[in-house]
Amino acid sequence: MLKVGVIGASGYSGEQLLKLLLAHPRVTLAAVTSRSQAGKPLSLVAPSLRGQDRGLTFVDSDASALAASDIDLFFLALPHGAAAEFAKVLVPAGKRVIDLSADFRIADLAVYEKYYGKHHAPELLPKARFVHPELTPPAWKTEAALIAAPGCYPTSVLTPLVPLVRAGNIISREHIVVNSYSGVSGAGKKAEEMYLYVERAESIKAYGLTKHRHLAEIEEQLSANAGGRCIVIQFNPHLAPMRRGIATTITVPAAPGATIDMLYAAWKSTYEGRPFVQVLPSGETPDTAHVTGTNRVDMSAVLDSRTGNFVITSVVDNLVKGASGQAVQIMNLWCGFEETVGLL
Amino acid sequence: MLKVGVIGASGYSGEQLLKLLLAHPRVTLAAVTSRSQAGKPLSLVAPSLRGQDRGLTFVDSDASALAASDIDLFFLALPHGAAAEFAKVLVPAGKRVIDLSADFRIADLAVYEKYYGKHHAPELLPKARFVHPELTPPAWKTEAALIAAPGCYPTSVLTPLVPLVRAGNIISREHIVVNSYSGVSGAGKKAEEMYLYVERAESIKAYGLTKHRHLAEIEEQLSANAGGRCIVIQFNPHLAPMRRGIATTITVPAAPGATIDMLYAAWKSTYEGRPFVQVLPSGETPDTAHVTGTNRVDMSAVLDSRTGNFVITSVVDNLVKGASGQAVQIMNLWCGFEETVGLL
Amino acid sequence: MLKVGVIGASGYSGEQLLKLLLAHPRVTLAAVTSRSQAGKPLSLVAPSLRGQDRGLTFVDSDASALAASDIDLFFLALPHGAAAEFAKVLVPAGKRVIDLSADFRIADLAVYEKYYGKHHAPELLPKARFVHPELTPPAWKTEAALIAAPGCYPTSVLTPLVPLVRAGNIISREHIVVNSYSGVSGAGKKAEEMYLYVERAESIKAYGLTKHRHLAEIEEQLSANAGGRCIVIQFNPHLAPMRRGIATTITVPAAPGATIDMLYAAWKSTYEGRPFVQVLPSGETPDTAHVTGTNRVDMSAVLDSRTGNFVITSVVDNLVKGASGQAVQIMNLWCGFEETVGLL
Amino acid sequence: MLKVGVIGASGYSGEQLLKLLLAHPRVTLAAVTSRSQAGKPLSLVAPSLRGQDRGLTFVDSDASALAASDIDLFFLALPHGAAAEFAKVLVPAGKRVIDLSADFRIADLAVYEKYYGKHHAPELLPKARFVHPELTPPAWKTEAALIAAPGCYPTSVLTPLVPLVRAGNIISREHIVVNSYSGVSGAGKKAEEMYLYVERAESIKAYGLTKHRHLAEIEEQLSANAGGRCIVIQFNPHLAPMRRGIATTITVPAAPGATIDMLYAAWKSTYEGRPFVQVLPSGETPDTAHVTGTNRVDMSAVLDSRTGNFVITSVVDNLVKGASGQAVQIMNLWCGFEETVGLL
Repeated sequence: MLKVGVIGASGYSGEQLLKLLLAHPRVTLAAVTSRSQAGKPLSLVAPSLRGQDRGLTFVDSDASALAASDIDLFFLALPHGAAAEFAKVLVPAGKRVIDLSADFRIADLAVYEKYYGKHHAPELLPKARFVHPELTPPAWKTEAALIAAPGCYPTSVLTPLVPLVRAGNIISREHIVVNSYSGVSGAGKKAEEMYLYVERAESIKAYGLTKHRHLAEIEEQLSANAGGRCIVIQFNPHLAPMRRGIATTITVPAAPGATIDMLYAAWKSTYEGRPFVQVLPSGETPDTAHVTGTNRVDMSAVLDSRTGNFVITSVVDNLVKGASGQAVQIMNLWCGFEETVGLL
Repeated sequence: MLKVGVIGASGYSGEQLLKLLLAHPRVTLAAVTSRSQAGKPLSLVAPSLRGQDRGLTFVDSDASALAASDIDLFFLALPHGAAAEFAKVLVPAGKRVIDLSADFRIADLAVYEKYYGKHHAPELLPKARFVHPELTPPAWKTEAALIAAPGCYPTSVLTPLVPLVRAGNIISREHIVVNSYSGVSGAGKKAEEMYLYVERAESIKAYGLTKHRHLAEIEEQLSANAGGRCIVIQFNPHLAPMRRGIATTITVPAAPGATIDMLYAAWKSTYEGRPFVQVLPSGETPDTAHVTGTNRVDMSAVLDSRTGNFVITSVVDNLVKGASGQAVQIMNLWCGFEETVGLL
Repeated sequence: MLKVGVIGASGYSGEQLLKLLLAHPRVTLAAVTSRSQAGKPLSLVAPSLRGQDRGLTFVDSDASALAASDIDLFFLALPHGAAAEFAKVLVPAGKRVIDLSADFRIADLAVYEKYYGKHHAPELLPKARFVHPELTPPAWKTEAALIAAPGCYPTSVLTPLVPLVRAGNIISREHIVVNSYSGVSGAGKKAEEMYLYVERAESIKAYGLTKHRHLAEIEEQLSANAGGRCIVIQFNPHLAPMRRGIATTITVPAAPGATIDMLYAAWKSTYEGRPFVQVLPSGETPDTAHVTGTNRVDMSAVLDSRTGNFVITSVVDNLVKGASGQAVQIMNLWCGFEETVGLL
Repeated sequence: MLKVGVIGASGYSGEQLLKLLLAHPRVTLAAVTSRSQAGKPLSLVAPSLRGQDRGLTFVDSDASALAASDIDLFFLALPHGAAAEFAKVLVPAGKRVIDLSADFRIADLAVYEKYYGKHHAPELLPKARFVHPELTPPAWKTEAALIAAPGCYPTSVLTPLVPLVRAGNIISREHIVVNSYSGVSGAGKKAEEMYLYVERAESIKAYGLTKHRHLAEIEEQLSANAGGRCIVIQFNPHLAPMRRGIATTITVPAAPGATIDMLYAAWKSTYEGRPFVQVLPSGETPDTAHVTGTNRVDMSAVLDSRTGNFVITSVVDNLVKGASGQAVQIMNLWCGFEETVGLL
């Protein structure tokens, strides 16, 4: 049994992560920390865990004490900034660290600081790896000490697009338009008027147009997979009246001569045999409700002969494949477990 | 008091139309027809009208009898095809007709028949006018005998885009990408598995990609307003977990040299003083929940300096400004009432 | 045109009240106050009013200035406590006041202070009248200077029960069990974790069991209508995943010999000709969705022959008949307008 | 590995059951039948199972062939009536059968036939056992051949009430009032207007007052646990705008001298150590959202000193503890697996 700890688990992703780890047959949840909730039983803060929490209590977040413990692997479910502070202590102590925040997702320090402000552990960036479990080549499993799990929007965008930019002859690198619609849990557990039930029910609303932070991560990954040629996308995020789920619709011109079969061939060669990426037939469209609670990306595409565009749609559960489930999948692969253990 | 009749009022748009007309201070609702509901009190079929329905009962739909009545104006709230059958009798009898279906929205018969099949009253097309109350020049009020009210998706697309294509120097005519998200009432009152509560809650899903019927109407109107140059758009419709509302997000490259001020100037010169089109400041985004029950389009735009695209967002209540409210607005203008009477 | 003012209009009931008054053909909205929003346009705080707000701006709440103005009638849409402070100034100045808070709903000062704490204007209690427009005998229209509009839960309970306790021989005065389910707007616009979208969607939860404040109002009214005999009820309020609406289900033993016809006769004699109380046939049950946006109570009852109980169900829109609509209805009656003007 | 089959798995409970069994570490899902879906892959009918369905296909429902197979245990996820037809063949063939329908829940044939019509296998009633896993004494594990799993409403009612009626001195046997609010999946996957998204969102509505079928099951169980004294309850079921979940609120007079501590003592002696029944402290109320996807009943109670009533609230996920999860829990216990395996 692998001993794991979760640092900063009082938000929605943290709750989902605890749920997965408590039911995971190969791990022991040895410590759960939260500054604001220290001393409280898990199930008091996250009542969905009643009867399942093995009597665990939130403890205060003391990085040195955790570094000195016999815990093998830590998940950081903290805001950006705070995550780097913990990584700075845990990684040098030889712990494996999977970070769910943005702190180590972006290799280019200048880009990070433009979107997020000062970085608190830039010295760790060379040791960190951004790992999309189906896309990142497997060498990371032995090379890395610190894994950055992809964000929710980026997972919904990169999973369909990376195989296509890699192929080089399927899609245009220009005029890529991404519209994403996120359930409200994507905003975190924030007691703000904007996220009240009465405000968000029956409501769709764009936000963060032209400057959403996930842009940095999406474009860096796309560009890296395009042989370094810079890819700039239009990314339009929205809030939708759901608890969970992201629905992303991507419009991109087909490259000259590209066909829908070429697109599907690129997807199949990348995802064949990978249970957590489900490629639907062209003409069938994925549905956020079908992936709720699962670690899947469902996706499909059509070629619109009138416009010459591919229209690609993908869906994820933002708290599972978009956050905690993907982190568990990374742990499974990193620690030599079966990829799907503890996940749906 | 104007005597009006509603033909085919058993669906969601029909119910909304009855609600508006029953409260309208300048009209008398003289007849409400429905083949399937004939003989039943209005409020049995539409319980939201209890106490407000003046004892009215659905009558059978007999076009000749209606043509011979003293009713001045008819609303057709029928499926396409059926609407033309009634128009064929009522218009020659000298009645004013406002059609909420697609039958007279498309001037080009070949295009109509490609999307909808055989037209049942092509001889009326020259007498029919597509009227978007804020965009169509006012001559229609005296010229027309038969008005086609715009559809819900088209209203959300044409209201922001027509002033821009008219201007000529603000947006590109290519790479226009429209993503629209509709509440479930947009699909009508159909007892199909796809529209069940359990299927649609927590669900966003694209549908009708590359071939939605509203494309014909949108492109014909855009092209007509672009001096006849053919405009082809990418139109991606989706279902969203709301009862009502359409949220449309349009991405379009700015024309060379175009600025956000130019865009806003075009909107303001078109919509200044028009209460049902509300232009929000750039950076503020509209919200479907804010227009529920109203006859408004709320809209705004930003220019994304990274991509050179305008991102335009608009919202409407699909049953009001997207259907029945707009039909009442057309009646108000046509009959010389104040434009806003009976509407919010 | 009657000049009216609204004091404290930044919450959900306040927004609904402004919506109704702005569209009301017999009143001029002359002042809208809010301490927290002073200086802002109405439609900035309440975007649903865009295009309808006649350029009005929130002004600061200065009771003396308002008392000296030419405004005829004030609505108080304030928290309890604050309402009394304004009434204390406005009533002596000869203004008509309709209070939507609890401050003047309870005649018994000791009961008020048990549930709400110190009363800030007890000297006004003799001048105040609790007015349920369909139940309170019409003498209030000339006698009162200060009207307390009933609360949302009480409206849903008193409308069906008062005619039955008045009759004396229809229902038991014991074992009355009231379960009520309220949409989230009933809690007000509070930025608390409990009212977040993610917390409230898919959630039903009891709260305030045994000690909800509306108990005082419900029991005082029932007892007063039972010839002063004390009626104690079990009142179980819950939150339900809706924006608006209250669904109340009342179980009460039938009095010996009582029949369902006797119950309906009592209702009909009270409500015949009153458009805002709709009595449905026994066996048909009301639905919160059917009254959204309306000023109606829909209600029905069955007699369960197995248990000897009447089961009564009633629904209201908590923001309309449960608050602002009812206040407008009271104004209509008080000022001699048609009861239904400006209401659905 | 236990070989199991699921008969009639195309509805919502069936889908949930497949989801649980496909992830269950101790069983092999050997056959899944559906008359209407025969020949189709599981994940085409239930897209939430994509990537998890092991290539399984629905087969036609042939009772004799199934009886002759090497499958050890069958779940019947069929409508009542149809379930008995299969049980009639499978039980005599020595198969273990867990029935999710009503066919074997009611021991009294006359009562069954009053609520459900003719019984198709009355000869099996003596071999069948109604098993509530936490309440039924464990002898059933060796005695029974055919298990009736409790219904969703009954689970929410019996779990709190049975320990209290058994105790004899805690609650009254009269004036028991049960109000239950069910998510829409409780009605099954029926393409009827009543269950459309637009009809059910923002809607609470009572239905089946005085005659709901689950009454028979609830009262028979309560009476059997009250030493055979007949208990009659008022049961008021409602539809609520949720996909899943039942919230039940029970009002019952306390027996003379009974205290809240006595009630909690009865619950604790019954449920101590049972992970799927979580007793919350008095004053804290359970929430349907907290049990979604779990096999738990969460419940609590207060004593209202004003009325002398206990108010008890309980919540379940109607598709898990109210149907499929409970059936899996029964299988776990019957087959000697750990009670919680494969369940949350």
